[in-house]
Amino acid sequence: MRRLSFAIATLLAATAMAPLAIARGPDGPAAPSAPVDKIVDEGTNRSEVMRVAQYLTDVIGARLTNSPGMRQAEDWTQAKFREWGLTNVHKEGFEFGRGWSAKNAGVKMIAPRPLTLIAAPLAWTPGTNGPITGQVVLAPMADEAALDQYKGKLKGKIVLLTEPTDITDATDPDFRRYGDADLDKADTFQLQNGGASANRRPSSASRMAFTAKRDAFLKAEGAIAYATMSSRNGKLVHGQNSQFQVGATPPLPGFEIAAEDYRRLTRLAKMGAAPSLELNSEVSYDDSDTKAYNILADIPGTDAKAGYVMAGAHMDSWAMGDGAADNAAGVSMVMEAARIIKASGIKTKRAIRFALWSGEEQGLLGSMAYVENHVASRPVDPALTGTNRYMNWSKAFPIKPGADHSKLAAYFNLDNGSGKIRGIYTQGNTAVVPIFREWLAPFNSMGATKVATGRTGSTDHVFFDAVGIPAFQFIQDPLDYGSNVHHTDVDTFDHLKPDDMRQGAIILATFLVNAANAPEPLPRLPLASEPKASDGFYAAPGAH
Amino acid sequence: MRRLSFAIATLLAATAMAPLAIARGPDGPAAPSAPVDKIVDEGTNRSEVMRVAQYLTDVIGARLTNSPGMRQAEDWTQAKFREWGLTNVHKEGFEFGRGWSAKNAGVKMIAPRPLTLIAAPLAWTPGTNGPITGQVVLAPMADEAALDQYKGKLKGKIVLLTEPTDITDATDPDFRRYGDADLDKADTFQLQNGGASANRRPSSASRMAFTAKRDAFLKAEGAIAYATMSSRNGKLVHGQNSQFQVGATPPLPGFEIAAEDYRRLTRLAKMGAAPSLELNSEVSYDDSDTKAYNILADIPGTDAKAGYVMAGAHMDSWAMGDGAADNAAGVSMVMEAARIIKASGIKTKRAIRFALWSGEEQGLLGSMAYVENHVASRPVDPALTGTNRYMNWSKAFPIKPGADHSKLAAYFNLDNGSGKIRGIYTQGNTAVVPIFREWLAPFNSMGATKVATGRTGSTDHVFFDAVGIPAFQFIQDPLDYGSNVHHTDVDTFDHLKPDDMRQGAIILATFLVNAANAPEPLPRLPLASEPKASDGFYAAPGAH
Repeated sequence: MRRLSFAIATLLAATAMAPLAIARGPDGPAAPSAPVDKIVDEGTNRSEVMRVAQYLTDVIGARLTNSPGMRQAEDWTQAKFREWGLTNVHKEGFEFGRGWSAKNAGVKMIAPRPLTLIAAPLAWTPGTNGPITGQVVLAPMADEAALDQYKGKLKGKIVLLTEPTDITDATDPDFRRYGDADLDKADTFQLQNGGASANRRPSSASRMAFTAKRDAFLKAEGAIAYATMSSRNGKLVHGQNSQFQVGATPPLPGFEIAAEDYRRLTRLAKMGAAPSLELNSEVSYDDSDTKAYNILADIPGTDAKAGYVMAGAHMDSWAMGDGAADNAAGVSMVMEAARIIKASGIKTKRAIRFALWSGEEQGLLGSMAYVENHVASRPVDPALTGTNRYMNWSKAFPIKPGADHSKLAAYFNLDNGSGKIRGIYTQGNTAVVPIFREWLAPFNSMGATKVATGRTGSTDHVFFDAVGIPAFQFIQDPLDYGSNVHHTDVDTFDHLKPDDMRQGAIILATFLVNAANAPEPLPRLPLASEPKASDGFYAAPGAH
Repeated sequence: MRRLSFAIATLLAATAMAPLAIARGPDGPAAPSAPVDKIVDEGTNRSEVMRVAQYLTDVIGARLTNSPGMRQAEDWTQAKFREWGLTNVHKEGFEFGRGWSAKNAGVKMIAPRPLTLIAAPLAWTPGTNGPITGQVVLAPMADEAALDQYKGKLKGKIVLLTEPTDITDATDPDFRRYGDADLDKADTFQLQNGGASANRRPSSASRMAFTAKRDAFLKAEGAIAYATMSSRNGKLVHGQNSQFQVGATPPLPGFEIAAEDYRRLTRLAKMGAAPSLELNSEVSYDDSDTKAYNILADIPGTDAKAGYVMAGAHMDSWAMGDGAADNAAGVSMVMEAARIIKASGIKTKRAIRFALWSGEEQGLLGSMAYVENHVASRPVDPALTGTNRYMNWSKAFPIKPGADHSKLAAYFNLDNGSGKIRGIYTQGNTAVVPIFREWLAPFNSMGATKVATGRTGSTDHVFFDAVGIPAFQFIQDPLDYGSNVHHTDVDTFDHLKPDDMRQGAIILATFLVNAANAPEPLPRLPLASEPKASDGFYAAPGAH
């Protein structure tokens, strides 16, 4: 049923509109040889997008940066690009840190009664060297002042670091698609401010510094491990360790415990039942190659001087689940767009480059490295690395354009799950609005309608955008991405939507071809210069 | 905030209405000594309902019939009733079968890549005697004909029995309270038909028989274990084994695997990746006492000849989670109603009996035993035991009234989670509607408004109802009971709603006092006789 309706929508879309940027016959509707028709045909009838997604998720699984899974994905995707005939397929390394993977992790309550709990080892924390047991103590530590009160009380203990919160009533559906009102919300102009808005959480630097101090305190006090509470209910766990300073190795085993199990522990502790746990995590570190790698592959243009356009998606994931919606979905659509364009034999003036980023989950590190190496540099303190570099990069001025700054005509990113494309954020670039409206027109009947002036952040287009490249993230239906899937152990292939992903790959391929063939490069915003305090919109750190 | 608003609602309710069935002063509003005011005061200001619930869930945990947890709960609740001054506190046994409990159960994928899966051992299946490993084979067997096609193909294998289904979009909220339209739906008259409607699934007998044949086939073919897929997404598991014939011991270890993990296994199997599992379950059987026990406790009436009224809730649960919403919630409200009435010093003409049932999850077996021993018997084939007896009991005629048939004036049940009471089902007993409207009036402003003529089934009032006792289940807000909690590993204390449960205990206590003091026993429906085919509403088995 859904395939049929998709096919019908596809036919309607392919014949209904004749976007200006695509060459058309002079006498009426599009000829079957028009690029958009070829793309729709190839992406609908010979789609590989779900096969790619399934290999990345079911077969390879989680792809934490520099983990064995990510290494396997780096090799497999390069081979796939080569198999499809792309050129200049290679990986570009940047310094990251040791690899980490865990297996056979488990947490059991052994007193006051035996019970298997749901838990995940926190990424990059050391293993337990076999099962270790200890009594839990609830010791939430929000800041350095809080450490003192637990001095002398943690020896031999498993420290519960999260103050448990009650369950909130889940009165919103877990699964949703955008309505018009949602799409309209994205259509709000925001002033460009040198990319500073890329940093959602400018206080993270101090939080990371505190986390390092807290970990050292726990170790010094003789605690044997610590645990945090999952931020989601319903036994979902993440194993995400966002306060990890890239390259560092935490001193103690750390676990995230499912919310229901964690709350039970804290209640038992408060009633004096002295709950004890057995913790086990078998962890491997890999120092054989501390570089992370972006995967790059090209389809050459017909005019070597015309520069290039680009699509990207990050391939790394967190360690639980299979990294399906975040972001095998984006990777598969980017790769499928490459395959569609190549298989269709469409020629473009500009080259098209495809990028699969690494280190995104630790601070967009892969795309930042690409921008720094090819597009533009900023005078960031060299002592700042990893996530700290991410958090400070957009605040450093002046921006110094690099070799590709004038060559890179457009960048398109996919990283909002497997939901179908409903439109595109223009990041305040109002001049591209009419152009994108035309490019999106053939896909209006597939639900892709909104060219939004608003900005979106938190993924790999932001550092391109921050140095003046026309760089965009598509608007996608949220599905169950935010409710259940994002970074959890149910980020699995079965939560992906095949019809949506076929639509996304088709639209991305069309945008790339249009951008690569447009007579002029996409209009750019002026290169940002350091905002002055008197400008009034450059808020102090912490105010975002 | 919520406590405050509850307290305000309570005050409003306690003073606003003067229900006819409660003695009132002649000169105006209720005196502070009126039973309803005492009940509201005791149940609001000195509530124990959440302490009871917490002990049953956090400390004791799961209470599968005849498991160690259920035995502990049987002892603890009797001690609590005695501590509160109830009389005739005792347990009444009925033949059930061996006890079962599991610990340290786990399922890991060992090929094509290592991964810890979420799984639950199916209740009553044997343990693995240490970890066992085998390749999975997807072999859905819906009926006997399906067995043949797998002959010779299962030796040494782990058999996946469920044909996986896709994820359905979760477009309804997980958590909800009833609106007026929901309550109105319950207000639909249905003809009484001798209790035959108690059986939701009359085909279960044949399904159970097939399950036994299938298990024997798997064993004979040399399969080492089997697994089913969780019916819920999001890694929730149940371990429920509804096709278990009480008293039987399944021949092979069986596991329920989380839906996402199960689907991944079947996809890998279909793509030829030959997934293998390591299964482990450490299981204990207990044959020391094969009787299950109902817990009974009384508050005597002032007139020994006036008979009694009764409240009940089942205390047994399935083996995953802590049996919180199903049904520590109901048990705690029933016990709290007992405590409130006793502590308030309220005297009633009729005695009030409190029952905590066992064996409900295997077919209302505890309440059925009570009805058979005290209230009425039916000529069921003695060869039918356990769940098979449950499924056939209401079809057997004639009904023969027992010693308590004329004495038991009313039965009230609680088993729909921890949501507040929104009304009561009258089971088609239209004569009680005006009476219950009066009894419910003081609680209208607490959200309890609906006296519904409709029937509800599936819990311990049905066999009382089926032999002509006025027996009722309250209408409760569903909360997240149906979406996530029911029979799963997140049926835990934190999903219970304290304010709702205080309200429920208060209303139940008031109904019990009203029923025990009513001048006349509640009106009864005529005792059912065997429906004739010509009556047209006694559907053939399978048609429900």
